[in-house]
Amino acid sequence: MADIQRIDCGPRMSQAVCYGGLIHTAGQVAMQVADGDIKAQTQAVLDAIDALLAAAGTDKSKLLTAQIWLKSMSDFAAMNEVWDAWVLQGSTPTRACVESNLALDSLKVEIAVTAAL
Amino acid sequence: MADIQRIDCGPRMSQAVCYGGLIHTAGQVAMQVADGDIKAQTQAVLDAIDALLAAAGTDKSKLLTAQIWLKSMSDFAAMNEVWDAWVLQGSTPTRACVESNLALDSLKVEIAVTAAL
Amino acid sequence: MADIQRIDCGPRMSQAVCYGGLIHTAGQVAMQVADGDIKAQTQAVLDAIDALLAAAGTDKSKLLTAQIWLKSMSDFAAMNEVWDAWVLQGSTPTRACVESNLALDSLKVEIAVTAAL
Repeated sequence: MADIQRIDCGPRMSQAVCYGGLIHTAGQVAMQVADGDIKAQTQAVLDAIDALLAAAGTDKSKLLTAQIWLKSMSDFAAMNEVWDAWVLQGSTPTRACVESNLALDSLKVEIAVTAAL
Repeated sequence: MADIQRIDCGPRMSQAVCYGGLIHTAGQVAMQVADGDIKAQTQAVLDAIDALLAAAGTDKSKLLTAQIWLKSMSDFAAMNEVWDAWVLQGSTPTRACVESNLALDSLKVEIAVTAAL
Repeated sequence: MADIQRIDCGPRMSQAVCYGGLIHTAGQVAMQVADGDIKAQTQAVLDAIDALLAAAGTDKSKLLTAQIWLKSMSDFAAMNEVWDAWVLQGSTPTRACVESNLALDSLKVEIAVTAAL
């Protein structure tokens, strides 16, 4: 479809899809720092989200929603430290954060967002 | 953005965000009755959702989607009793209900919805 | 609402809701083959999604997002075999895949999608 824009469209999934004035990202994980602690992984995930938003011509000031999956809820406070420093005051998205095992045992956090374009 | 409306916009998240004719709520939990049973917690969560929808000028007749996370799937039937009494016949949203640990050990249910404005 | 279209609108949930140029499906599970293995269940779930998309006048070429819940991440590779054969190259949606117990113990996979109409 001419009006559906897919970013990093791979054989299994696209890393983001833009349609109808919104960008939806895939769940981002920290493959490059999969041996890192929760803060390093959260920062890498948020950096990946920033890059996808930028590729679509938008940024975190237009965030609408976020879903966070933590491998262990014991990482909640440390994840939140990185999250709280990343979000823009006055522009925070909705959020749901639950505990789930992720695709690889070493992955501690996965985050997907939607934002306005 | 002038056209993104954030409800209860806190430093970590907004409780709801309205954009493009939709409201998205954050995952709602029953902090006030975190010692309550599944029915009390589910009712408190649905009351919170009703309040957010009302704050945006809409109501449960315009629900589009719901995501439900249960700490224990053994609470599925009791949660559904409260849910089934809450939804409007003819206006039920899509739903996905899965099991996940939530942010606090005492929380038994978390629900996020989207609705048309 | 005249402009919200609900497909298979039951007393608890609708199997899909169309609004604002999008279709949102409920989390689809393989009730008919709940005793099947992960590949049989994944194929049944994707068949159900195809049917919902068709009922709304769209198809998988317009997929925007997918959320996959696996009862066991040990089924990741086998689920992906069926998934990879189903998606259209050049039209893959965003995806998040996490591990969660589902409503019935026999269910191994649940998938919800959104697509453009």
